[in-house]
Amino acid sequence: MDQTSSHGTGTLSEAELSLIDRYWRAANYLSVGQIYLLDNPLLKEPLTADHVKARLLGHWGTTPGLNFIYVHLNRIIARRDEEILYVCGPGHGGPGMVANTYLEGVYSEIYPDVPESEDGIRKLFRQFSFPGGIPSHAAPETPGSIHEGGELGYALLHAFGAAFDNPDLVVACVVGDGEAETGPLSGSWQSARFLNPARDGAVLPILHLNGYKIANPTVMGRMDDADIARIFEGHGYRPIFVCGEEHAPMHQAMAAALDTCFDEIARIREKARSGSGSGPVHWPMIVLRSPKGWTGPKEVDGLKVEGFWRSHQVPLSNVKKNAEHLKLLEQWMHSYEPQTLFDETGRLVPELRQIAPRGGRRMGAVPVANGGRLRQELAMPDYRTLAVDVPRPGAVNAEATRVMGTLIREVARLNADTKNFRLFGPDETASNRLDAVFDVTDRAWMEQLKPYDVHLAPDGRVMEILSEHCCQGWLEGYLLTGRHGLFSCYEAFIHIVDSMFNQHAKWLKVSRELEWRAPISSLNYLLTSHVWRQDHNGFSHQDPGFVDLVANKKADIVRIYLPPDANTLLWVADHCLRTYDRINVIVAGKQPAPQWLSMDAAVRHCEAGIGIWDWAGTEDGGEPDVVMASAGDVPTMESMAAVDLLRRHVPDLKIRVVNVVDLMTLQPRSDHPHGIGDEDFDALFTTDKPVIFAYHGYPYLIHRLTYARTNHANMHVRGFVEEGTTTTPFDMVVMNGLDRFHLALEAIRRVPGLAERAADAVEVFNRKLEEHKRYTREYGEDMPEITQWGWSYDTAARTGD
Amino acid sequence: MDQTSSHGTGTLSEAELSLIDRYWRAANYLSVGQIYLLDNPLLKEPLTADHVKARLLGHWGTTPGLNFIYVHLNRIIARRDEEILYVCGPGHGGPGMVANTYLEGVYSEIYPDVPESEDGIRKLFRQFSFPGGIPSHAAPETPGSIHEGGELGYALLHAFGAAFDNPDLVVACVVGDGEAETGPLSGSWQSARFLNPARDGAVLPILHLNGYKIANPTVMGRMDDADIARIFEGHGYRPIFVCGEEHAPMHQAMAAALDTCFDEIARIREKARSGSGSGPVHWPMIVLRSPKGWTGPKEVDGLKVEGFWRSHQVPLSNVKKNAEHLKLLEQWMHSYEPQTLFDETGRLVPELRQIAPRGGRRMGAVPVANGGRLRQELAMPDYRTLAVDVPRPGAVNAEATRVMGTLIREVARLNADTKNFRLFGPDETASNRLDAVFDVTDRAWMEQLKPYDVHLAPDGRVMEILSEHCCQGWLEGYLLTGRHGLFSCYEAFIHIVDSMFNQHAKWLKVSRELEWRAPISSLNYLLTSHVWRQDHNGFSHQDPGFVDLVANKKADIVRIYLPPDANTLLWVADHCLRTYDRINVIVAGKQPAPQWLSMDAAVRHCEAGIGIWDWAGTEDGGEPDVVMASAGDVPTMESMAAVDLLRRHVPDLKIRVVNVVDLMTLQPRSDHPHGIGDEDFDALFTTDKPVIFAYHGYPYLIHRLTYARTNHANMHVRGFVEEGTTTTPFDMVVMNGLDRFHLALEAIRRVPGLAERAADAVEVFNRKLEEHKRYTREYGEDMPEITQWGWSYDTAARTGD
Repeated sequence: MDQTSSHGTGTLSEAELSLIDRYWRAANYLSVGQIYLLDNPLLKEPLTADHVKARLLGHWGTTPGLNFIYVHLNRIIARRDEEILYVCGPGHGGPGMVANTYLEGVYSEIYPDVPESEDGIRKLFRQFSFPGGIPSHAAPETPGSIHEGGELGYALLHAFGAAFDNPDLVVACVVGDGEAETGPLSGSWQSARFLNPARDGAVLPILHLNGYKIANPTVMGRMDDADIARIFEGHGYRPIFVCGEEHAPMHQAMAAALDTCFDEIARIREKARSGSGSGPVHWPMIVLRSPKGWTGPKEVDGLKVEGFWRSHQVPLSNVKKNAEHLKLLEQWMHSYEPQTLFDETGRLVPELRQIAPRGGRRMGAVPVANGGRLRQELAMPDYRTLAVDVPRPGAVNAEATRVMGTLIREVARLNADTKNFRLFGPDETASNRLDAVFDVTDRAWMEQLKPYDVHLAPDGRVMEILSEHCCQGWLEGYLLTGRHGLFSCYEAFIHIVDSMFNQHAKWLKVSRELEWRAPISSLNYLLTSHVWRQDHNGFSHQDPGFVDLVANKKADIVRIYLPPDANTLLWVADHCLRTYDRINVIVAGKQPAPQWLSMDAAVRHCEAGIGIWDWAGTEDGGEPDVVMASAGDVPTMESMAAVDLLRRHVPDLKIRVVNVVDLMTLQPRSDHPHGIGDEDFDALFTTDKPVIFAYHGYPYLIHRLTYARTNHANMHVRGFVEEGTTTTPFDMVVMNGLDRFHLALEAIRRVPGLAERAADAVEVFNRKLEEHKRYTREYGEDMPEITQWGWSYDTAARTGD
Repeated sequence: MDQTSSHGTGTLSEAELSLIDRYWRAANYLSVGQIYLLDNPLLKEPLTADHVKARLLGHWGTTPGLNFIYVHLNRIIARRDEEILYVCGPGHGGPGMVANTYLEGVYSEIYPDVPESEDGIRKLFRQFSFPGGIPSHAAPETPGSIHEGGELGYALLHAFGAAFDNPDLVVACVVGDGEAETGPLSGSWQSARFLNPARDGAVLPILHLNGYKIANPTVMGRMDDADIARIFEGHGYRPIFVCGEEHAPMHQAMAAALDTCFDEIARIREKARSGSGSGPVHWPMIVLRSPKGWTGPKEVDGLKVEGFWRSHQVPLSNVKKNAEHLKLLEQWMHSYEPQTLFDETGRLVPELRQIAPRGGRRMGAVPVANGGRLRQELAMPDYRTLAVDVPRPGAVNAEATRVMGTLIREVARLNADTKNFRLFGPDETASNRLDAVFDVTDRAWMEQLKPYDVHLAPDGRVMEILSEHCCQGWLEGYLLTGRHGLFSCYEAFIHIVDSMFNQHAKWLKVSRELEWRAPISSLNYLLTSHVWRQDHNGFSHQDPGFVDLVANKKADIVRIYLPPDANTLLWVADHCLRTYDRINVIVAGKQPAPQWLSMDAAVRHCEAGIGIWDWAGTEDGGEPDVVMASAGDVPTMESMAAVDLLRRHVPDLKIRVVNVVDLMTLQPRSDHPHGIGDEDFDALFTTDKPVIFAYHGYPYLIHRLTYARTNHANMHVRGFVEEGTTTTPFDMVVMNGLDRFHLALEAIRRVPGLAERAADAVEVFNRKLEEHKRYTREYGEDMPEITQWGWSYDTAARTGD
């Protein structure tokens, strides 16, 4: 046990201690005022019910602890000129973040309608949790924040993401003991093992144990110090405990603990950067045990409040109608002695103004917290030089993600010096065939290296850990602080971070409404090893539903791309890496598959997002009999094979082939900026002909996107209908009715009058399905006519190429 | 440090050791055979390419370790007559689970077409990862399994869920070092602090560190033993290390370690059950370090395979075409000496048959692994006795979930002796107003108790931890082993377990296709503190999209209920708790709200799932002018208020009111068994009149469910469109256009010719919206005419009640 309990008597002089305590009181006063007051902000008059808000909303319990940490970090910044980003895990302590950024002047700079004056404080109080005002949690509206309060679990991941490639930054990350119970947070302690002190900043975790969540003690809150120390020492940290409730000794202990931590961080950096020795790094951290609702009412109506879960939200909840509660509130607010903190005009008194750092060192104004301002465009290669040569459609096979890997390699190479691009994934970069990137960089790895290890290095820029939560959280932190990245993931398992995606989309939606927040790089997903090609795995790995979740979000924010082959994937990947303030989802396979478009044709197709492949169809100028549409690589191949079958067996059928790369083109333009106009839609899909739509995911999404289009009643969508197991690739599409035979059969069935005329074809296709079943069950692989099928029409005449 | 490294020389006699080693080899042999062979199962002939499968699919790396653990647990069962459930975290080691259940005879009992014979082994091999055969992972098809291989993170949670209220059970839970990196698994180590040895079974975690995942070392795989020991000691375990690769010493060490663990479990139980003292419990666990791909090829093509990530899937992947690989495979399989393990007929030799336990003690046949067989129906109260008295619609207010809480209280009371019902939630039982349950039980809490704690006790049956992952995983384990439960959660944060929901739905879908798997109780969600009433919180807490995910799953499995008031919620909750093999999602609010239906009316409405509220409408026998439809409590209230507005301001408008409780009624019957017929749908929604549909969630879902209905083009759905913040309840609906004024305005706009006639009403409604905005921004609460609005029509005449 090398646990240190911090005492630090004498770290602060009496004068320093007094100033720090008063600053803390000012922050606490402003926090309480935000929760309760409409008026009388400096308590110049006796408090009456009229001064109190009708609805008391907010979270007091965590706030005084957050304020305590904030003022002590201010002291460190002032003494050491450190650049510190404050990540507030218990983000529902929003009043504390707002109070502190107001005290340091940042708030009024960003929001001039809330000036440093009595009227400003009145507005500050009134706006909190108030219609037309600000949310109760730390949020995009909160200066200095990259972390929304609400869903718990991701604070430490955001902190590490911010620290990567920011060598001079220290991210002070407060983790509440409620949050510490979550799975994602529990897993994120491992992040320290991926942080390289030679090139990255530092993360200083401050585990703030106030012992309670909404209505319960917390697990760590009731653990003894020795157990807590063991856990964090095992994870590679050196915890320092700061425990108590008396104000003066706690100030001394916290000041001493922070001095120790920053000394230690300096030592770690010095050692790593001078090249004087490697070996395991033990990062310092603080375990702060302080009472929940510290400095608030000790008891209300005879029940324990301070130091208990009853202080979680609003300790006195009936102030407007209960005179005793009103009195208690007045006493409580007066206990901070506001008249000694603010002058007559409502400005913080001069000696306290000295506590806050200056300019960009103020934690509310630290540049990385508005990362878009720091963002540099990525240097991009010319993706055309990486294109697959496709002399005619179907002429060659390629693995799409392997080609995209060369783009990622070039991006990694071109931006190696700028150190602003990383690739994230749960141990799947090679499996997802993006391994070209290892030509120019390695996987980040700070633990032991063995002689036979491959592509592991402390300065690697590929972040692999078997935790989708870590990948997503790190990437979010990296983007929010002005950098770029891509997350590649097995399609099914991206659902693990559904909720993180939701929260990031919400962050972007609100950020875009704030002029002072500069745009950040888009969050780019490559979903591969997708539902149709889980060869080594089974039903548990088969789920294409993430895009359904994505499509629920604000249209401005989300894009969904389903490139049918390698060259279209190149265009899409290049495009996504150039965008900002969006979430781009790219779904693409990694298996060898036919290539349809030359690079030029791919560019034209992708720029439109949707289009007719006239070289594939058999229409001749008039209306077709049927539209064979597809979105996604495997569905496109099956749809093309169905067209091939129909061309051979029903030669007089007029077929139009439509392919969709950008799924959002299907929506009405009123619903999404990429939506095509109704006339264009009708020109593609006709107004009355059957459309056989082969889609990558759950078919309902296509109906949802197109229900308002003219020809919707004739759209017959086939996709994943939740049938799967470990089987052959073609058997998977057959199980879900998405295969070429089912598609061709449906086309015949839907074209009026065709079924009788094409009875022979129907019989052939049904027989082929039977043959397939027998063959695979006998030989365990797909029939040669399936695996060797290739598009064989010479289409130069049609395309004019 | 009290870490124990197990040596245990001499625990096993030479004879025992030899038998155990041979049994292990038999399991390894059968595992390799499944991955590779089509024929020649006992290698009676020289191996040729024709004997080998065309596609080599599966995961070897983890399998020998799983087999090693299995045979040693068999020894323990035989010696101690223990009931052990084997939870196989690295479930992609499916061949190992299949091999072992085959060796102990269970497999052939369940699947008589795979008998214990040479032909049986041939079939066993052939079916694996083969079309028409079995999946590559442990799955519902695998005897003895409650845990699907695939998505990682939930093994330990399933284990603890199984152990709760199963006092004689030991769950041996293998956690791979890849899985140990995930967030959910990291958080689930806390589960031990919720396990009560006096009433629950034991969980024996076996952390199986083979050091690698797909293409990387693992974090724990490269940690030193001391760090690992610290982490687990901190979490309250006593880890025993078994590390090495030489077979004989490893057998001795594992046998000794397991003896120690089971001695310790017996001691913990004895102490807890004799009442001789409480205090912290330190559960034993094993850390097993063994080579990945143990006993497989050491090198292939000059590259390290055994003890490295290259053994993750198929170590020799080109067997059919590469003669050297074929030779290596043959040598590898012969190294297990199959001729000494199986007799001429393919039966395991008699001395090895003795190793496996008998009957229900075999881990493939342990009763809890087919929990439906053990399931007892819940004793249910008469929910009618708990009904809210609703003398006429809108006459009273009630908090729906608080009323449901009384039902849960009665369920908890009636089933207290059977100990087969628990309530799960992330610290929100009281916040979600289900606290009536605390009249009869407490929250489970094994850590320190303080004198001022409330409703915490070691024998509490309410499971609260601030981890949705833990709640969901525990409940799944509890249900899969034959018990009942309910998970109550904030609506927005249920997305945290989207992926777990997916996997459970997949498990149920496949289980239902297996006759030998008995039905288990449904997984019931109560989603409350929903999007419309996040008063203390903001945008981060506002997301109603979980039901969209649910609606993608197989119709047989999923149900979504949106009861509009307390009595309908009572019916729905009672109904859901009686069902099996389903996932029921109930969305209901906790705030005081108008009550619409008496208990009798609620029963009629819920049994139909959808219906006309004729007492609320103004139609008079003919077709209405407009249909005002709603689903969800807040939308129903707003829709009813809109009807009220229209009745007052446009008195001659013929309005039909339709309410939906069971969302699946909207789908065509061909898509869902609860879907109503097209004629019934047309009778409710007309074929050509405008339908103004107020829906709880994202409006697209209603379009998706109804796109094939006759009148779909006239359905105008309003719901959550991703606008939100901390504001008043009514302002939230206004922000999303779901409020009474927007609904009434849309009705007027959509009824042909009405807009002009109702111009005065339009002006009034628009003015009201302006007034609302001014009022809330001035006073911070909703206008009295909103908060005091009540349905005021005497409808006795219409209803005939």
